[in-house]
Amino acid sequence: MKKVAIIGVGQTKFTGAQGKTSVELFAEAATDALQEANLKPKDIQALYLGNMVGDFEEGQCILPGFAADNIGAAYIPATRFEGACASSTIAIRDAFIWVASGFYDVVLAGGVERAASMGTALGTRTFAMACDRSYESPTGLTFPGAFAMLAHLYSVRYNIPLRRLKEQMATIAIKAHHYGALNPKAQFQKEITMETVFNSPMVCQPLQLYDCCPFTDGAAAVILASEEKARKLTSKPVFIIGIGQSSSGPLSNQKEYLPRIRSREISSQQAYKMAGISPEDIDVCELHDCFTIAEIIASECLGFFEYGKGGEAAEKGETKIGGEIPINLSGGLKAKGHPVGATGAAQVYEIVKQLRGECGERQVEGAKIGMTDTLGGYGNCLSNLILQRGW
Amino acid sequence: MKKVAIIGVGQTKFTGAQGKTSVELFAEAATDALQEANLKPKDIQALYLGNMVGDFEEGQCILPGFAADNIGAAYIPATRFEGACASSTIAIRDAFIWVASGFYDVVLAGGVERAASMGTALGTRTFAMACDRSYESPTGLTFPGAFAMLAHLYSVRYNIPLRRLKEQMATIAIKAHHYGALNPKAQFQKEITMETVFNSPMVCQPLQLYDCCPFTDGAAAVILASEEKARKLTSKPVFIIGIGQSSSGPLSNQKEYLPRIRSREISSQQAYKMAGISPEDIDVCELHDCFTIAEIIASECLGFFEYGKGGEAAEKGETKIGGEIPINLSGGLKAKGHPVGATGAAQVYEIVKQLRGECGERQVEGAKIGMTDTLGGYGNCLSNLILQRGW
Repeated sequence: MKKVAIIGVGQTKFTGAQGKTSVELFAEAATDALQEANLKPKDIQALYLGNMVGDFEEGQCILPGFAADNIGAAYIPATRFEGACASSTIAIRDAFIWVASGFYDVVLAGGVERAASMGTALGTRTFAMACDRSYESPTGLTFPGAFAMLAHLYSVRYNIPLRRLKEQMATIAIKAHHYGALNPKAQFQKEITMETVFNSPMVCQPLQLYDCCPFTDGAAAVILASEEKARKLTSKPVFIIGIGQSSSGPLSNQKEYLPRIRSREISSQQAYKMAGISPEDIDVCELHDCFTIAEIIASECLGFFEYGKGGEAAEKGETKIGGEIPINLSGGLKAKGHPVGATGAAQVYEIVKQLRGECGERQVEGAKIGMTDTLGGYGNCLSNLILQRGW
Repeated sequence: MKKVAIIGVGQTKFTGAQGKTSVELFAEAATDALQEANLKPKDIQALYLGNMVGDFEEGQCILPGFAADNIGAAYIPATRFEGACASSTIAIRDAFIWVASGFYDVVLAGGVERAASMGTALGTRTFAMACDRSYESPTGLTFPGAFAMLAHLYSVRYNIPLRRLKEQMATIAIKAHHYGALNPKAQFQKEITMETVFNSPMVCQPLQLYDCCPFTDGAAAVILASEEKARKLTSKPVFIIGIGQSSSGPLSNQKEYLPRIRSREISSQQAYKMAGISPEDIDVCELHDCFTIAEIIASECLGFFEYGKGGEAAEKGETKIGGEIPINLSGGLKAKGHPVGATGAAQVYEIVKQLRGECGERQVEGAKIGMTDTLGGYGNCLSNLILQRGW
């Protein structure tokens, strides 16, 4: 298979509810990515677009055809991917194989969502459709509920009193807001303290408001190209050297593994194996912190810390710049925001910027290899990408 | 790239509203396909699943993870594709590249929809979300309306009086029901006459009820494998020798082409070119007859007949067994039924059965090369596959 490079990235400012349609939001991100890659819309051979609930939110199915037409790339193959919160990561993983196989030379991938425009109450109910509809949704399970249960299970399994775990979780939120304040594209750009977290409303015990990511409107886009094309178009390519994807069924079918997310272990192992590296080789990581407990769990499943030790490591600063593995320097879903279908592509946006050394105050000096991790549902669609700075 | 074979297919009986969930329906089709391919669920390396509105209809997003888990293939990569009515064709096209590239050896693809369970009124409104939401949906445009406009335009453009065109269209419906009556998996298994069509209620002038396909519940599945694997598992492989996909924006942006569907011309040309063949080489075709006028238009855009001559050719019997190009011998969307997200995979099911010589009374003798054509929206997602009987 051919080597595949990312030669351009774009991201809208992540925000609360705003007035642009999904087609318009994606056009903004795509146009920035095209400009970075020195390409015109007509150069794009195909579009791979992640979106979760554009049908529910704004009444638009089959979005990519309209998006391609809108940016001036009418009639190209344009495919929508839905893997809940991982929608755009699986879109990029898929775009990868079309270029790696030699079928296409230059393609556009990304994602978009108007999650904030949906409103918090309707959003929470709508996104709960990523739970199993036969046995879980009917019980009233939503994602704050699912992750609250995981937090309780984590506390019991690893013998960490809930009060201690809540402090560890708060550390994650504080870090997210710290780095978010340094990211001009983040939805929240303000520092918070332990008190902010503990004084915030209870969402679902033990998760308080500041343990939860927001709903966000936004889009992100990346241009993938073959190595030959990349050589002509950019001096700063970032190569995709590892990909992984896994799935799972209802929570109850995962019970022998929980609170570990088995699909994440499988997916990340695929990516590491393909890249020929280990977790120790990752210089910077964007992972799926939809809730603070989710970051702790993810940092363990990806192999960065022992099981039960992720929270402690975060408290010690091991996930900040200068630590063992800097995590979510974009602000993560927690502070940068979580426009569901765009989240995976925005993670790639951040890692590409990190590997190019363009992140200013939140730059990991000399970062060569980065990783993204995106969780759809509670593992029903999970995908990882490993990126490496080129020549 | 490697040669890719289809080594097993499965399809549920297509029906009106029924009691199985999408996960259960797909399991039925997938199990049949696995059995044909002499495989166990654990042999499947990835799942590519088309579904349009499982979220709206039964409250289930991120369907493929649950579907994989349910058939005993937990934790495999499982990806949902939404391209409206073409959802499962783009899923199969995508599955193709993962095998052709050598990344996987054996994958499962297909589609499922509970379109009948949605009900006709809600279904019509819901599927109308495949129209452009900024300028078209707000006018009240639905798909019967869109295809009625195309019929009027066709009548004017090719100077065929509407009464004549309606007779030609009725021919399509009569043929569909004729072959549907011979297909035990079809939703409608009864012959109709010209009177049946002309006495049926008017849906949207000039389209009467029998010019329109029904809403259908159903699923279809196919197993794709590398040539090496196929040699070990089947004596009757069918190879995918050509693939095409194209998109389009709002109807108004296609006005220089209409009533031709430009994305169909582009997509089918891609497929012909890749296969190294011409329309004359196709022995049997399943194309997207969501409305009778749609079959006429498709038969021209695919290159089988001159523009404006598709209806006349159908009247002369050129699209029946023994004619120039037998079309929709499964009964088509019109009589076999149209479970939106499953339709493309069901077309592949029929063509594979035809190329294997397993279609009984509706068999095209000695068919070697077949084609599928699936239209999402009014061309916003269009995909074609060309299949060839193996060794």
